[in-house]
Amino acid sequence: MSIVSSVTRITTAVFVLIGLTGLAASAQAADKAGKPGVVIQISENNPATWNLALNNAKNLQQALGKDKVDVEIVAYGPGINMLKFDSEVAPRVKEASASGVAVRACGNTMKAQKLTEKDIEGSVKVVPAGVIEIMNKQREGWAYIKP
Amino acid sequence: MSIVSSVTRITTAVFVLIGLTGLAASAQAADKAGKPGVVIQISENNPATWNLALNNAKNLQQALGKDKVDVEIVAYGPGINMLKFDSEVAPRVKEASASGVAVRACGNTMKAQKLTEKDIEGSVKVVPAGVIEIMNKQREGWAYIKP
Amino acid sequence: MSIVSSVTRITTAVFVLIGLTGLAASAQAADKAGKPGVVIQISENNPATWNLALNNAKNLQQALGKDKVDVEIVAYGPGINMLKFDSEVAPRVKEASASGVAVRACGNTMKAQKLTEKDIEGSVKVVPAGVIEIMNKQREGWAYIKP
Repeated sequence: MSIVSSVTRITTAVFVLIGLTGLAASAQAADKAGKPGVVIQISENNPATWNLALNNAKNLQQALGKDKVDVEIVAYGPGINMLKFDSEVAPRVKEASASGVAVRACGNTMKAQKLTEKDIEGSVKVVPAGVIEIMNKQREGWAYIKP
Repeated sequence: MSIVSSVTRITTAVFVLIGLTGLAASAQAADKAGKPGVVIQISENNPATWNLALNNAKNLQQALGKDKVDVEIVAYGPGINMLKFDSEVAPRVKEASASGVAVRACGNTMKAQKLTEKDIEGSVKVVPAGVIEIMNKQREGWAYIKP
Repeated sequence: MSIVSSVTRITTAVFVLIGLTGLAASAQAADKAGKPGVVIQISENNPATWNLALNNAKNLQQALGKDKVDVEIVAYGPGINMLKFDSEVAPRVKEASASGVAVRACGNTMKAQKLTEKDIEGSVKVVPAGVIEIMNKQREGWAYIKP
């Protein structure tokens, strides 16, 4: 092994490792710089707030592009009424789902209020606990909005 | 030093450094993947909201296990009434504290309302400023919930 | 190339790379440990909430020092009324701006309510969409407060 080849190998090792370090750093930066997500909480029995939440979701999709942002609405507690099939915003909930907004109902609240999937708008999915869903989204880097 | 031993050493260096890079990356990932925390804000003088917050705390502990999640309730402004010793939810506040939920009162609000520690439920601790407590928790990676 | 010099070079490479890995890690930690920011959302037509938000902003600046924390208030939906030039908290909004708090009005809301910059307090700036402003701040690591 010549001196030149030895130095070359060491230099290569240095650059490979600088590269790997850089890759690791940029992969983590990418998480923050990647596709944004917003979780919108509804915990009030107030149609004005429901409409504001639905406007927020629509504005996000219109401004950024449906494919460029993840939007999820999570309803729990008295907010669950927003998602009932006969809620005054049920048509807007259906429209939001069709437009790619994930609309989620808190399973704990549904149990407490003796509601089943038949009681809520057909496009809504039930999650075990609304508060944990909202926590998880924030832990994944999503922004939180409570209208 | 033979060629074999030289190459071996360089290869070892490469693997050691890939390992170190990996360790650093996973240590940072661990921060996010570690024990979750949720800070719950109470800034309203509304017993229904107080009960919802206490339900949220309970649900988090029941679903994830008391030792697997940190939960803190911070009350400020008109929300301070939740923590008074004669509040209608005082027994639930005491129970939450006993169950490992950190319940905190905003010192600024207490000063403004001329309240002392004698006026609030015995298990509650006072922090200098509720808003800074909530900010700090979010900076530590905790999720934020305003019921 | 002697054995000693070869081992020295490899050892140097190891330490250089440990150092680089460490630098990358601490640069990322610095983002979180840097100057804190708090974005305060106003989406309600409620002067008590407006005053609470303005108190929050003031408390943050007083406790941490105006130069040590970034504070931004974003109003949208029914919250836009807080920022009208004849709002009952207009003097406090002006004072907050003068004190370094960024006060922002949602352009979408202003369009929907046919408001122009003449209708709002002179120190307030308009952003295209309040919800996106709030999302972006959270993505930059700011804490979120909804009073």
